[in-house]
Amino acid sequence: MTQIDVKQKVLAANMEAAAALRAGFAASRTLVVNLISSPGSGKTTFLERTVADLKGRLRLGGIEGDIATERDADRLRRHGIPARQILTGGSCHLDARQVRQALDDEDGALSALDILFIENVGNLICPTNYDLGEDFKVVLLSVTEGDDKPFKYPAIFSKAALAVLTKVDLLPHVDFDLPAVRDQIRTLNPEGRLLETSAKTGAGMESWYELLSSALAKKRA
Amino acid sequence: MTQIDVKQKVLAANMEAAAALRAGFAASRTLVVNLISSPGSGKTTFLERTVADLKGRLRLGGIEGDIATERDADRLRRHGIPARQILTGGSCHLDARQVRQALDDEDGALSALDILFIENVGNLICPTNYDLGEDFKVVLLSVTEGDDKPFKYPAIFSKAALAVLTKVDLLPHVDFDLPAVRDQIRTLNPEGRLLETSAKTGAGMESWYELLSSALAKKRA
Repeated sequence: MTQIDVKQKVLAANMEAAAALRAGFAASRTLVVNLISSPGSGKTTFLERTVADLKGRLRLGGIEGDIATERDADRLRRHGIPARQILTGGSCHLDARQVRQALDDEDGALSALDILFIENVGNLICPTNYDLGEDFKVVLLSVTEGDDKPFKYPAIFSKAALAVLTKVDLLPHVDFDLPAVRDQIRTLNPEGRLLETSAKTGAGMESWYELLSSALAKKRA
Repeated sequence: MTQIDVKQKVLAANMEAAAALRAGFAASRTLVVNLISSPGSGKTTFLERTVADLKGRLRLGGIEGDIATERDADRLRRHGIPARQILTGGSCHLDARQVRQALDDEDGALSALDILFIENVGNLICPTNYDLGEDFKVVLLSVTEGDDKPFKYPAIFSKAALAVLTKVDLLPHVDFDLPAVRDQIRTLNPEGRLLETSAKTGAGMESWYELLSSALAKKRA
């Protein structure tokens, strides 16, 4: 078996596990969002703000993927929601079977939710190909990472239904060509949405909450 | 053959190719540095500043790894040094055979250098295990990425002889616990060096040049 055969086999097994997850999420009418970005783009901070703002109205939960440390799940739990850390060891992405295992290990705590956020391992490349049974992928890009990233990592920007620009409060301090980034994202994904946000100032967060509400309403219609 | 067997086989083949590269670099007495970081940590900007400051004194060249676009090699060539872009397609790291091919394709232009910089694909995880025949690895971390990264990505911080903190000019605008990061890096790699730099202001760059000079002198002793 060649390297490519093995990769195909792994992806096929993942697809099967993801389909089973998706059926379960449909039955429990849980909206599932898979968040993907570089390390340090601000995924966890974005989720912390989201949870702080929405937890009074919606039942929320999180699954956090990392190579090492329980830090991110701890950060979400501190906001009073159930969260499970998946430690991947050396692996550079989450797969559907790990998500299945995390749901089982939480013994129901992540099963009766309105929205489940899955924060993937910090990596713009490898998580792109692993379906986790989510309703949609979100790619996050911080304005401190430079304005050439969508074209340098085209796969995830093409696949994610939503691109979230983070840390826009830092725009005055960095060289970042915002119109160029908007153009790159629009080129890669004409149907996709783009939000410009700061979890620090709250800029753009209301649009994100409206998008979540509307996706949840659609799932339950 | 299982997935793990295939991975071992791939790594063994890479190790063999890397050993051949290393022998070649020893013969040409070229110092080779493998730079690894998240997307957007500022690897290319750090190299541009380095090239601008050192090109009068040393023969420099670059190999740039990316999923897509020739942007990074173009940025180095604009400074008047030879540079080769490797487009990995979907692959999340460079391997030694790609480096061999890039050297061959440049037809000698990258063979009579004092220092060859290899800028890996933007990824803190996968490039860690692929030896490229380098003298040492450098891991770069920007202060905008947050102060929890070394413990979240321990492998690369343990393996890199040098950790470079980039964008320290932005420290006043971000929450970043610098002493905590110093401690994490020291814990993971007690023998390693840490430099705190800004390619924008030039802070810390002289120490980097001294480190390069001394490594080059040692290689040629």
